[in-house]
Amino acid sequence: MRRSVIKDVLSTAKFGDKVLVKGWVKAFRQNRFIQLNDGSTITSLQAVVDFENTDEALIKRITTGAAVGLTGILEESQGKGQKFDLIVELIEILGDADPEEVSKTILQPKKHSLELLREQAHLRFRTNLFGAVFRVRHATSFAIHKYFNDNGYYHIATPIITGSDAEGAGEMFRVSTLDAQNPPLTKDGKIDWSEDFFGKETNLTVSGQLEAELAAMALGKVYTFGPTFRAENSNTARHLAEFWMVEPEVAFNDLTDNMDLAEDFLSYICKYVLENCADDIQFLNDREIEEDKAKPVAERNEMNLIERLNFVINNDFERLTYTQAIELLQNSAPYKKKKFKYPVEWGTDLQSEHERFLVEKHFKKPVIISDYPASFKAFYMRLNEDGKTVAAMDILFPGIGEIIGGSQREERLDVLLEKCKAFHIPADELWWYIDTRRFGTAPHAGFGLGFERMVMFTTGMANIRDVIPFPRTPKKAEF
Amino acid sequence: MRRSVIKDVLSTAKFGDKVLVKGWVKAFRQNRFIQLNDGSTITSLQAVVDFENTDEALIKRITTGAAVGLTGILEESQGKGQKFDLIVELIEILGDADPEEVSKTILQPKKHSLELLREQAHLRFRTNLFGAVFRVRHATSFAIHKYFNDNGYYHIATPIITGSDAEGAGEMFRVSTLDAQNPPLTKDGKIDWSEDFFGKETNLTVSGQLEAELAAMALGKVYTFGPTFRAENSNTARHLAEFWMVEPEVAFNDLTDNMDLAEDFLSYICKYVLENCADDIQFLNDREIEEDKAKPVAERNEMNLIERLNFVINNDFERLTYTQAIELLQNSAPYKKKKFKYPVEWGTDLQSEHERFLVEKHFKKPVIISDYPASFKAFYMRLNEDGKTVAAMDILFPGIGEIIGGSQREERLDVLLEKCKAFHIPADELWWYIDTRRFGTAPHAGFGLGFERMVMFTTGMANIRDVIPFPRTPKKAEF
Repeated sequence: MRRSVIKDVLSTAKFGDKVLVKGWVKAFRQNRFIQLNDGSTITSLQAVVDFENTDEALIKRITTGAAVGLTGILEESQGKGQKFDLIVELIEILGDADPEEVSKTILQPKKHSLELLREQAHLRFRTNLFGAVFRVRHATSFAIHKYFNDNGYYHIATPIITGSDAEGAGEMFRVSTLDAQNPPLTKDGKIDWSEDFFGKETNLTVSGQLEAELAAMALGKVYTFGPTFRAENSNTARHLAEFWMVEPEVAFNDLTDNMDLAEDFLSYICKYVLENCADDIQFLNDREIEEDKAKPVAERNEMNLIERLNFVINNDFERLTYTQAIELLQNSAPYKKKKFKYPVEWGTDLQSEHERFLVEKHFKKPVIISDYPASFKAFYMRLNEDGKTVAAMDILFPGIGEIIGGSQREERLDVLLEKCKAFHIPADELWWYIDTRRFGTAPHAGFGLGFERMVMFTTGMANIRDVIPFPRTPKKAEF
Repeated sequence: MRRSVIKDVLSTAKFGDKVLVKGWVKAFRQNRFIQLNDGSTITSLQAVVDFENTDEALIKRITTGAAVGLTGILEESQGKGQKFDLIVELIEILGDADPEEVSKTILQPKKHSLELLREQAHLRFRTNLFGAVFRVRHATSFAIHKYFNDNGYYHIATPIITGSDAEGAGEMFRVSTLDAQNPPLTKDGKIDWSEDFFGKETNLTVSGQLEAELAAMALGKVYTFGPTFRAENSNTARHLAEFWMVEPEVAFNDLTDNMDLAEDFLSYICKYVLENCADDIQFLNDREIEEDKAKPVAERNEMNLIERLNFVINNDFERLTYTQAIELLQNSAPYKKKKFKYPVEWGTDLQSEHERFLVEKHFKKPVIISDYPASFKAFYMRLNEDGKTVAAMDILFPGIGEIIGGSQREERLDVLLEKCKAFHIPADELWWYIDTRRFGTAPHAGFGLGFERMVMFTTGMANIRDVIPFPRTPKKAEF
């Protein structure tokens, strides 16, 4: 008999159907009721065992965590909140789970801390919470591919190993096959990188943007979706050393087009997830409400997860310039009461406390801040007419902070070369990037979305380590 | 006026519509006819300039490679093979392309070698050929995500940086932030990896399979789709140091299920690409026929690209065991005539010449070879009842060779531990992998598809460097 997936059984089977399901035992009560989960959905199927007529040795092997195959007939459930009971005719034990051993792991059915779950990341997929998180992560990911595909974008695989460290976007990881203990040396005693695998020093990419621009200047609309890396010693709930980034890049778009795209895109993702992961989102929503009850009122979420997702779908993002943001902040109560720790003045970057005030207190919705001072934004951002700001934009989400950073790119060859000089970017190493400004340059724009930050938003998880299966952070590369 | 994308114009616009299109000049003939391409489709839009009433200086700037915006009215074309002419009312030069400079690049409209195109990979997106290749690559990628999503699989991001080098699947790239020149040393003069970013020696992943298994043993059906790495000094048309791999893993599947999945999956991709990239596939098909004409008859493709794609869709793959393959080869004409260079005997791996004979000469269709000797297959493959073969499978494609390698996994704890010992795999380092066999183990199976090899098949390109935007190979990490 062919195995049926529980998600399909719950949605399409009829009373009286005979099915074979396989999965893991979540719970076994009264030697009679098995809660069976196969990962396809958060909902477990209740199976009813005729324990009087079942071999006792077999019954003993039905324990939490064991893998079993159950054949039986679907009947209308007598229990509350479930449609079916599976009346079991045949039990097959696929894999045992020794209760003594299970009790030492997070498979033990009780509440475990998120920290402990992280240490057993190989098993946490089996919990209701992480099953839901990773199903929603998948849906978030698929929504992104689908949005771009349906809107005529082409996915571009930008290189992971890069020979260019010219962008200066952050600390990088070196990639090498040289003997670390006894590397080849040049005559003057330096490491001879020409002997390395790629014939030069190479690093892990911090962004695929520059290469995506090359593709956009030919294919028109492209996006990247791949891993990027930061070798920064940041042990926060919002940073990973290895994370996935989504970077659309569009020829002929200006900054306003870029904002419109980002807003439409983020709304689409929220809508897709709500529509396609209703059960998991409901579970995560209820869990958050439950968790909040244990917190001081001031730390609780003002809106619950479902409300926040709907909020993004139903509200236009607030758009203002950096200059307007500075003015607004300087007229704010916390500024006047000297509650901000960091200065608020034109020319210095906004700090998290300022962004949170704007998003969470003042506007109470997602905010797009644009046209930042050129001095603290990347060299490739387009210089505005005023000669001191650039066509940059940051999108700030409640509870997450910056979720998107983007800009219109500097398409004018002469201005770009000036900027390289001012920012100490070696233009000769970036000859291929500069070239696109020499052969049919055109206005273009794009942005980067930190994928895991988006998954924090779609799942409500507060720590970025809990939305990627095997997080990489300083001193942690387990599994 | 809002810009229209040429693909949309060609498919949905009506005669008399006024549109604004932006793109790059492919050709400009008789000071009158512009072929404009914006990357959305291989088809350029023909625009007709009223050159008598257009400023001469402006006309001069309409050169191959320049970016322009054209506003005008769509009329029925007088030309052959195209529906529309755009009667231009307004020309905007977005970016010039100096013909003198263009003539030094591959933008020069003439035939360039694929080698030269690779050296200018930042510009080759603009050619008809690479526009087609990368649009088809995107469609191949999206087809994969869509297939798995629609069939209830969850995408799992497996780690790129790995602290485990236990799998032994190939040479690895080391990832480090230690000072290469003066690394910290332990008391006995060895590199002190505990001082490195992750507190231990780390490498780039060669496969996400082991981690995908962890997820499959909870979520049921999962897949990975991400970059993988091999630090092997292979300068062939089929090898990259950095390539993308697709690895589905399914709980409760056996080897036959695995074959069924692989066959259905590959057929789906071919069908999707044919249906969604008709223009690009036709172009690639015709190009291949044209290229073949210059080759000796023996080197030409027996089927053209479209025929090969249809062949995969319409034919069941031939399935035979390794043992049957050996017998068949030993009875073959080339074996009897001593035409094979490598020996054919039970216990030694099949070589490319043997695989090609089976696929291209004998069966003339895709072939699945299963149940290889345990001795030369990976430790995690399930040992068959005979005690000497494993439940492995390789899928061989005409012209590509091995496109998929997979197996049912060894789910029995005791057998797996024996295999680790025999293969010198340090089981203690893989504690998290072994653990899945201790807590509700179950039969499961999966495979790996080298994504770029699949794109070679869907585009007909013969060199793997021509199906990834910026190939990484020994001594090459440009762009």
